[in-house]
Amino acid sequence: MSFFSRLETRARQIDSLLCVGLDPHSSDLAEDTAGAARDFCLRMVEATADVAAAYKPNAAFFEVLGPAGCAALQEVIAAVPQDIPMILDAKRGDIASTADAYARSAFYTYGAAAVTVNPYLGYDSLQPFLEDPERGVFLLCKTSNPGAGDLQDLWVSGEGVEPASMPLFQHVARLAQTWNQADNLGLVVGATQPESLRLVRLVAPDLWILAPGVGAQGGDLSAALRHGLRPDGLGMLLPVSRGISRSRNMRQAAFDLRQAVNVQRQALAAHLHPPSAHSDQGAG
Amino acid sequence: MSFFSRLETRARQIDSLLCVGLDPHSSDLAEDTAGAARDFCLRMVEATADVAAAYKPNAAFFEVLGPAGCAALQEVIAAVPQDIPMILDAKRGDIASTADAYARSAFYTYGAAAVTVNPYLGYDSLQPFLEDPERGVFLLCKTSNPGAGDLQDLWVSGEGVEPASMPLFQHVARLAQTWNQADNLGLVVGATQPESLRLVRLVAPDLWILAPGVGAQGGDLSAALRHGLRPDGLGMLLPVSRGISRSRNMRQAAFDLRQAVNVQRQALAAHLHPPSAHSDQGAG
Repeated sequence: MSFFSRLETRARQIDSLLCVGLDPHSSDLAEDTAGAARDFCLRMVEATADVAAAYKPNAAFFEVLGPAGCAALQEVIAAVPQDIPMILDAKRGDIASTADAYARSAFYTYGAAAVTVNPYLGYDSLQPFLEDPERGVFLLCKTSNPGAGDLQDLWVSGEGVEPASMPLFQHVARLAQTWNQADNLGLVVGATQPESLRLVRLVAPDLWILAPGVGAQGGDLSAALRHGLRPDGLGMLLPVSRGISRSRNMRQAAFDLRQAVNVQRQALAAHLHPPSAHSDQGAG
Repeated sequence: MSFFSRLETRARQIDSLLCVGLDPHSSDLAEDTAGAARDFCLRMVEATADVAAAYKPNAAFFEVLGPAGCAALQEVIAAVPQDIPMILDAKRGDIASTADAYARSAFYTYGAAAVTVNPYLGYDSLQPFLEDPERGVFLLCKTSNPGAGDLQDLWVSGEGVEPASMPLFQHVARLAQTWNQADNLGLVVGATQPESLRLVRLVAPDLWILAPGVGAQGGDLSAALRHGLRPDGLGMLLPVSRGISRSRNMRQAAFDLRQAVNVQRQALAAHLHPPSAHSDQGAG
């Protein structure tokens, strides 16, 4: 079963596009130890397992805690129920035997089902991550930080850029659409930029998009879903971390977020579903 | 003392541009364990400490060994003499508090003096790595793998690309030249592409370049040095790993490599040194 088949099964089953980010920031921990990081994540998993379409542990917050932090990451991934995909947010990118080692690390040393990867080194840097048909990759495409434009927004032309010049991030999306031969390659596009989501969807109609940045604001969420969802009402995964971990009732916060997303999905369903197709696939 | 001052002091002191790559590939280890990886690296360090301008452990080969591998990386870094800079080849790239955690991990959890970083997320993704004036960054610019052209060779135009369109990797080099405000930012450019080195040097005359790919071939080496060295005969760091680790006599192999580089540097010295300047700085 391909990674995205597995993700779609899970998303339909619990009617959720919510991806729970497991980010044990030192500022959120009672003490700056690997044990505290592990317990923080395990509490989040316990509170949200009924509405999490996926989990996304952030490798950096474990790495900074040293070998014990790496062991905590292994424990957290092992503790998540088998039917919930684990996306290791590691943003790796290297070549040849090094890329191969990073892929083996993410998928087999740590047990992740998918991993975020950087596109700067090109196709062969992704290949080791795409070799296992049951594992997935989310390729960085458009981020929402201040410096994202330094490279991602530049207009590019040259070999393989067709039919005309386009922003670099859109070219990355187009490459990803062609590179996705085994239903195991998606994209990372910030949810705060509906116009970027629109440009990405023009060239990558099929791919799943991991879209960080959705807050509690209905406006942003609605625009993001309008431009990012596929006609089947799926194709977007919305990571939320502090919006859950910092609430008094994590379980309730996660349920509320799923509901907020589904209300918008239902409002959009008429536009997303061309009357002639997908009529048997509910958007929520 | 800035990272590159420290590196220059070391390079002049031992008259070497050699960077010894510590890459414990599983295929090179007697057994696939963290202890074997650590011992493999410690043997390399012991054999080469007299001619290594720097060491470059590759994070992937430690990570894939799990928590014990991370502990081995700590031990290897701690075992290297204090006056030899350690460059952690990790190719990280993330934003905000995550980038901050990666920087703290590389510099303080693991004790590296410098780290390789990916440019795709833009300036603020580098900032946490540049904050400590004694630590350094090598920014990925032009790699030598088959897919490097997928993004790096595209022609870019747009805000900040001046005076005219240029390949993306050259724009990255130009950005790095302007971002290097504290003598702590260099570049990674494959040594197998002399023309890329030339284009990089046009826009980044001052920066240190970590240039992987130099083999035993004098031809490649000469062309790489001709286009990459600064007028002071420094500014390039040449990583070699298997060329040392797989030789019967690692110490001799490292001495031979230093010598091969220095013969070429001396042959180039007349061209590199404009008669009016730097006349007191020998190229070796």
